[in-house]
Amino acid sequence: MSSERLIYLPLGGAGEIGMNAYVYGYGKPDQERLILVDLGVTFPDMDGSPGVDLIFPDIQWLAERSSQLEAVFVTHAHEDHVGAVAHYYEQLGVPIYARAFTANIARRKMEDHGHPEEAVRTVSAWPEVTDAGPFRVGFVPISHSIPESSGLVIDTPAGRLVHSGDFKMDTDPVVGEPFDEDLWRSLAEPGVRALMCDSTNVFTHHEGRSESMLGPDIEALIDGCKGAFVATTFASNVARVKTLAEAGQRAGRSICLMGRAMRRMIEASIETGVLGDFPRTVSPEDAREIPHENLMLIVTGSQGERRAASAQLANGKYNGIELRDGDTFLFSSKTIPGNERGVIRIMNQFSEMGVDVIDDSSGNYHVSGHANRPDLSRLHKILQPQVVVPMHGEHRHLREHVKLAGENRIGGVLAPNGTMIDLSGNRAEVVGYVETGRTYLDGSVKIGALDGIVRDRIRMALNGHVTVNVILDEEDEPLGEPWCEVRGLAETGSSRAPLIDVLEEDLSQFMGRAKSATLSDDDVLEDGLRKVVRNSAMGEIGKKPEVTVIISRLS
Amino acid sequence: MSSERLIYLPLGGAGEIGMNAYVYGYGKPDQERLILVDLGVTFPDMDGSPGVDLIFPDIQWLAERSSQLEAVFVTHAHEDHVGAVAHYYEQLGVPIYARAFTANIARRKMEDHGHPEEAVRTVSAWPEVTDAGPFRVGFVPISHSIPESSGLVIDTPAGRLVHSGDFKMDTDPVVGEPFDEDLWRSLAEPGVRALMCDSTNVFTHHEGRSESMLGPDIEALIDGCKGAFVATTFASNVARVKTLAEAGQRAGRSICLMGRAMRRMIEASIETGVLGDFPRTVSPEDAREIPHENLMLIVTGSQGERRAASAQLANGKYNGIELRDGDTFLFSSKTIPGNERGVIRIMNQFSEMGVDVIDDSSGNYHVSGHANRPDLSRLHKILQPQVVVPMHGEHRHLREHVKLAGENRIGGVLAPNGTMIDLSGNRAEVVGYVETGRTYLDGSVKIGALDGIVRDRIRMALNGHVTVNVILDEEDEPLGEPWCEVRGLAETGSSRAPLIDVLEEDLSQFMGRAKSATLSDDDVLEDGLRKVVRNSAMGEIGKKPEVTVIISRLS
Repeated sequence: MSSERLIYLPLGGAGEIGMNAYVYGYGKPDQERLILVDLGVTFPDMDGSPGVDLIFPDIQWLAERSSQLEAVFVTHAHEDHVGAVAHYYEQLGVPIYARAFTANIARRKMEDHGHPEEAVRTVSAWPEVTDAGPFRVGFVPISHSIPESSGLVIDTPAGRLVHSGDFKMDTDPVVGEPFDEDLWRSLAEPGVRALMCDSTNVFTHHEGRSESMLGPDIEALIDGCKGAFVATTFASNVARVKTLAEAGQRAGRSICLMGRAMRRMIEASIETGVLGDFPRTVSPEDAREIPHENLMLIVTGSQGERRAASAQLANGKYNGIELRDGDTFLFSSKTIPGNERGVIRIMNQFSEMGVDVIDDSSGNYHVSGHANRPDLSRLHKILQPQVVVPMHGEHRHLREHVKLAGENRIGGVLAPNGTMIDLSGNRAEVVGYVETGRTYLDGSVKIGALDGIVRDRIRMALNGHVTVNVILDEEDEPLGEPWCEVRGLAETGSSRAPLIDVLEEDLSQFMGRAKSATLSDDDVLEDGLRKVVRNSAMGEIGKKPEVTVIISRLS
Repeated sequence: MSSERLIYLPLGGAGEIGMNAYVYGYGKPDQERLILVDLGVTFPDMDGSPGVDLIFPDIQWLAERSSQLEAVFVTHAHEDHVGAVAHYYEQLGVPIYARAFTANIARRKMEDHGHPEEAVRTVSAWPEVTDAGPFRVGFVPISHSIPESSGLVIDTPAGRLVHSGDFKMDTDPVVGEPFDEDLWRSLAEPGVRALMCDSTNVFTHHEGRSESMLGPDIEALIDGCKGAFVATTFASNVARVKTLAEAGQRAGRSICLMGRAMRRMIEASIETGVLGDFPRTVSPEDAREIPHENLMLIVTGSQGERRAASAQLANGKYNGIELRDGDTFLFSSKTIPGNERGVIRIMNQFSEMGVDVIDDSSGNYHVSGHANRPDLSRLHKILQPQVVVPMHGEHRHLREHVKLAGENRIGGVLAPNGTMIDLSGNRAEVVGYVETGRTYLDGSVKIGALDGIVRDRIRMALNGHVTVNVILDEEDEPLGEPWCEVRGLAETGSSRAPLIDVLEEDLSQFMGRAKSATLSDDDVLEDGLRKVVRNSAMGEIGKKPEVTVIISRLS
């Protein structure tokens, strides 16, 4: 009989930025009692996942062990940490623990999916703890770009773990708890077996800056603006929304919030009491009546999302408000890699309207929510863990963070998604690899990223599509000529005749030449017809389309 | 009879970065004699142009006036300036003038397309000039990130124009002519009617830096590397390739160039004598035998292009060379917005191999080829034009550059693609708008961006595709049941039955209920069947697919 062990297994978030899902387990091998920390989503893109609505981590390993699972703990309310809780609730069926603001957001998601809101349980901050099987878990306040973000203290029979969550070390974060070094230092008193640590900004070499720095520069910017002033940021960055609104208020502007997510986040903040004072706002209806020079809008869509308020303003009127020459639009945000095209499109649309666009290139209008390299080192030193396991980063971030731990004379373990680590011995050892991957929400259905469904869509996007139709009679003789339907291909090619005519002519010739062994065998006939279309199209238009062959046999 | 006028009309490059094509004309309205400056391409992406091979400016306006066209002048050999010359040669049919290096590259393109190489004529630098109708055009050397880049002096009966081309003010550019302030100042002596000016870096507030600064830092980086050192940059940035190779040589490494474009560019540089000394290189075959610690590769693929050398090295072996733990990979380049995902993918692949990746975030390993804001001002002041017309930029760059001209007390004209400006009066006046747009090279065929072909492909990528097939007899009675073929859709949905079964069942019911007025009318029947599939799929899987309906009537 083997002894008990403490394991760590990232199913998402380690090797990518997004869809966080970290498993901890304690018990006999393969019978561990488990908890899951965070269950987030990532967002699709046209390059790799066209038509997909959301991307989840593949949690099959965990779903197969749902009877061993005690609970889900959610560190904060960003979509990449909480976005999948409702989508996977049926498969996991365990309580979800979070602090009040995060729980508020999680409950809205459960409600949207018709799941019981009671499954989400609100817990208070450390020193309150929640028992979950062999684990005792406490939420330790830490600053980030959303209210009530928390690191987790996870006490286990094999020692104390600290899961940093997403964090920065802001002692004046405008909204929420400042970073409390004494509190974090006290966590280290019993000794920390391992620190699972945010790696996002490991390549950023300067110390992190405080949210509270931004107000004066933003206020000066608003003061210098003759028309309407519009700012966008992540709706969930409630501190930023407040920083912006207060700067606007000081500059004598009426403040109007726009975009569903913006209102939803502020609502949750008020309901849970995290917001404190917030300038009075006006409704979009009232905002219409206010002269531009007295108006400030704070809107959704900092990443260029096509349906968000910023994109709608860039397209023309939104909520009855239309920007114009003399107005200013501020991106109080960083563009996430991959979103550049969408953001630039909006910038140019505003430029065409005569609106001045200001982004964060000066560094004065945005600070990151993640700890930079020196701050990561500081946390290493405060907690003095026996081992650092980098998480929340692409492979390059994790690898660099392992090096950083080494610089700080702490052992680092590189554990990308699917790497199971045993932390119960003196060393952290890799004890196995688990298949991980991505699950797509496609319309209302979950499909596997490798099912071939999206691959087929990408192929149609790259190559176009031809449907070929032939009818054969009872004697396998063609009835009439084959014909084609074409989608997404040039209408004429090198011969100047319509492509469809060329294809049909070549198909007819093929059918005329085909022997009965071909005509009587669907597979052989289909293969032959497909080749004719691909070769014929290649000659005409230089592309080999995807081909669907329909053989109708009258019988 | 109206008098003669001098016009400027950008058909590409003004309102986007890419596919430059600028028309100048002189003569009676609508009978102007024309020249074209540059004829470039831009590159497709999955978001907006999946499956497209290249993007050209729509030059229909010019093609309709090819009898008025005298010549094409190409400022330099970047693809966004020279990439379309061969593709449009048949439509325009005029000589193409360029300096030796650019002409060498242009001729290779003509040769690839079976066009006469003699159409490309090599000209020497200013003060040599080429007469083209009412224009007299001289190529004035200016530094950029490719050899022999030139601005153009365009003398016209209505005064002197200066077309900056892409430029920076590098007095020590490693390869090619340094920026010669006296020469440029001399151009202004007769007075400059208008300066058409590069706007790429108008938002970059510090002065441009010299290529010659980079060598020592790169050498130090190579010195600190224990394994193979690999660097990527644009192949056409011959100065950078030389900077890299010389740094490698000083660090005692054998240098190997990899990637077709890299060899092609160096070949052209040697043929045209622009390169001067270049360190001795070894072939990839020989490189295999060299210990990693003595080896430096300079490779293509700085933008993460899937088939370039960098991507192939990231995927595994390339030319028999495999990178490993301890090797270093340097991006001596800036990632062009939109290419981030591809570059990051490669970075992470290298990280998984244990290869250290270094990018330009430190600013020490790359300098831009474009003039920054202070350098633009400097050119304004050197040339003292009556008017600045910003070009080579997105709308936001052009607009900002107009403001910059204003700060320098020079009139600026915002002229995005299609804006025809009359420069013959005292003021620069917009005298018309011309339809412009994009032409796609799709396989071997040119199609219009708005033809709907690519839109159909995007729709299939987003929504998937269903083919419906029904057969009717001579009396319009259905023969057998309708059936479906599905591509790019989930196999099962909410009812847990195969999607295809659900669709076929709903289609059968529709056919059973359909009246003869429906069954006898192809359009009505097609419309009905399409709706059934879309609604049925929506209910099952939450998506409305694209539908192709094939109705076969036996007659």
